[in-house]
Amino acid sequence: MEPRLKLWVEQNGRLVMSEYRLQLLEYVQETGSLAQAAARMRLSYRRAWGKIKELEHNLGIPLVHSEPGGAGGGHTTLTPEAEELLARYRDFHERMDRALAREYEAAFGERG
Amino acid sequence: MEPRLKLWVEQNGRLVMSEYRLQLLEYVQETGSLAQAAARMRLSYRRAWGKIKELEHNLGIPLVHSEPGGAGGGHTTLTPEAEELLARYRDFHERMDRALAREYEAAFGERG
Repeated sequence: MEPRLKLWVEQNGRLVMSEYRLQLLEYVQETGSLAQAAARMRLSYRRAWGKIKELEHNLGIPLVHSEPGGAGGGHTTLTPEAEELLARYRDFHERMDRALAREYEAAFGERG
Repeated sequence: MEPRLKLWVEQNGRLVMSEYRLQLLEYVQETGSLAQAAARMRLSYRRAWGKIKELEHNLGIPLVHSEPGGAGGGHTTLTPEAEELLARYRDFHERMDRALAREYEAAFGERG
């Protein structure tokens, strides 16, 4: 038996963070490029950009900083606010993964 | 900011318990009738029955006991195994709800 969980965060009934959005931001962080992050998510650049703008609007903080690029295309980096949000969200996920195993065992008396 | 979670349990990659299935069993427990439980879930009797049989197969335990009824239709009750499963699953959910608030606060430094 394997307990599973899905986490997200709402604000005034609106989604402000999910595993999907977290993944998009992590790819931006990893690649330094919104185009590459979008490609990894199999999203168009336009849709990826829209998702990030929606998230910035809902959270009320800037998440990405873009610089127009030369030969290799533009460069997109996370803002310090986004870096902190990601770090806290990862910590939250790790804490909840540990809680899942612990509380499942406490409730069912076996290792999850 | 409101953290949210969804929980389910898999066994060998197959879903063996979810909030939806838990709700169906709770309605059977509450009404003593699979027909009424199905109606509350907006499922056909046949589909509700199928879901319970699938769950019994995946879990390897009997979940419901049916008695053919008279005027008012048949009566369906949960087996002791299902009663125990429900109680443990409710305990698991309550524990995870508490963990969600606690770990969100620990990660984000505010009350979820």
